[in-house]
Amino acid sequence: MDPKDDKRNASRCSSPVCVHNPHLDALKDDILYHFSLGTGTHNLSAMFGDVKFVCVGGSPWRMKSFIEYIAAELSMEDPKADYPNICAGTDRYAMYKIGPVLSVSHGMGIPSIAIMLHELIKLLHHAQCTDVTIIRIGTSGGIGLEPGTVVVTKQSVDPTFLPKFEQVILGKTVVRSTDLDQSLAEELLQCSKELNQFETVIGKTMCTLDFYEGQARLDGAFCSYSEQDKRDYLNKAYEAGVCNIEMESSVFAAMCKLSGLRAAVVCVTLLDRLKGDQLNSSHEVLRDYQQRPQILVGTYIKKQLKAKAARS
Amino acid sequence: MDPKDDKRNASRCSSPVCVHNPHLDALKDDILYHFSLGTGTHNLSAMFGDVKFVCVGGSPWRMKSFIEYIAAELSMEDPKADYPNICAGTDRYAMYKIGPVLSVSHGMGIPSIAIMLHELIKLLHHAQCTDVTIIRIGTSGGIGLEPGTVVVTKQSVDPTFLPKFEQVILGKTVVRSTDLDQSLAEELLQCSKELNQFETVIGKTMCTLDFYEGQARLDGAFCSYSEQDKRDYLNKAYEAGVCNIEMESSVFAAMCKLSGLRAAVVCVTLLDRLKGDQLNSSHEVLRDYQQRPQILVGTYIKKQLKAKAARS
Repeated sequence: MDPKDDKRNASRCSSPVCVHNPHLDALKDDILYHFSLGTGTHNLSAMFGDVKFVCVGGSPWRMKSFIEYIAAELSMEDPKADYPNICAGTDRYAMYKIGPVLSVSHGMGIPSIAIMLHELIKLLHHAQCTDVTIIRIGTSGGIGLEPGTVVVTKQSVDPTFLPKFEQVILGKTVVRSTDLDQSLAEELLQCSKELNQFETVIGKTMCTLDFYEGQARLDGAFCSYSEQDKRDYLNKAYEAGVCNIEMESSVFAAMCKLSGLRAAVVCVTLLDRLKGDQLNSSHEVLRDYQQRPQILVGTYIKKQLKAKAARS
Repeated sequence: MDPKDDKRNASRCSSPVCVHNPHLDALKDDILYHFSLGTGTHNLSAMFGDVKFVCVGGSPWRMKSFIEYIAAELSMEDPKADYPNICAGTDRYAMYKIGPVLSVSHGMGIPSIAIMLHELIKLLHHAQCTDVTIIRIGTSGGIGLEPGTVVVTKQSVDPTFLPKFEQVILGKTVVRSTDLDQSLAEELLQCSKELNQFETVIGKTMCTLDFYEGQARLDGAFCSYSEQDKRDYLNKAYEAGVCNIEMESSVFAAMCKLSGLRAAVVCVTLLDRLKGDQLNSSHEVLRDYQQRPQILVGTYIKKQLKAKAARS
């Protein structure tokens, strides 16, 4: 298809991926430095124009394993293929693609995922992608949930349990919404019910800038509070509706909302923080838990593609 | 040497690595989850007890290249050795060691380096290391400096140019000092003068939570300010004494100070932000720039070890 036709169709009936930056048009080439890709060196439309689902997660190994899993689920696997890392020119992020599904790692924490999302949103925009759904599949600490429970985030909240993300721009703080797509969250929950392999709930997710002091752990290098202080804080979080704690959902929700991406956060809980801090389950148990978000999201994507094929 | 003797010596004449956490003593085993190491599974004293220099940087590839470089510099290289990744059980961080030098990657941004530092400080503490110097070798955007200039950080400042790091603990903000070791910074500057291979300066380093909007770039997915707004902000930073901008120095300075580690930040500037935003120098030029902090720090370590050998 002529890319111009694609663009016309997009403006008529599809939802494009929006950048909000008037300066981008003035750039001759756009270098996506942390992906080792660029508009001057790569035909992004040809490489990524068909992307409809983007899954992101912290660990590069997990995102490679996800693309292998989804390739098998969609019966698109090539037994000889090794699923090359599209970002092989850098060690900042890893990226894999099979058919309409893109899998990208984002490292740990808000700044790391924010760099990736800036460049991913520009990539999807340059590639003229439309109707893209993006899902973060991750790990988290649960609050009052059986370890292994999957949480689909209703809303991301900050360490004071408020649904906002603070972005510092030119030294000034701008507050952004952390709302996620409610219908997508419900569809994922429904999908999990049909799957019936593990417990899934919808709830608030607290997003922090630190794993130890920032999440009231007692086992960091520094700890100035008592076990009772910790318990009081986590109980307050529980009462505020927080189901789990992780480190990327707030900026993910904020940036996806700004760019018009349909977005969800699906994290498994590796432990119940009301009962402990250390991740001392066996490797096998933790590996099984970590596969749950990818199984749920894989099932969801398969269902969506089947429904789309039936419609056309 | 008996570890008990080592502990007695340490308390008498050497500087230990301090944790500030009364709860740690109650832990039977301490699992350093993101390193895939632990006190119950590894003999940390035997593995790390001789560490005197720790170098950290964002990229795992760069930290592997650093250990190869330092091994050659210290004439400790084994042509057959591949310098195994000590954290091979995880893809969160990479860690390499040769003699008294440890090289660890930390990913991008404050949260990512903070997780690493919590576990590194506990590791050095459990291993009963003494008199440890830690240096971050990284990349940055310069302000009013020729690209390729190396900046040794005098003080890390926030996006309002104030020398502080805000740590959120139990939902409340605690302000921590971002002072670095001034004598170490001067020694590194002196070392660069003797080396005479590239320009090195001492100055303030601004630490941000975002690479695009947070550093006044015009080329992110979102940009709500004008080129003039950007110029005004970076000029204000320049007037406040900021030489470069990166994303880890504040929490690095704060955590090293709390744990009694002698710490420095040595970053090369990849571009002059007063002249542009995109990293469009050739790969060869960028590679040459990125080697400069490792050359400077390698020379410094070699000099220190020679001086120590001469004293003993």
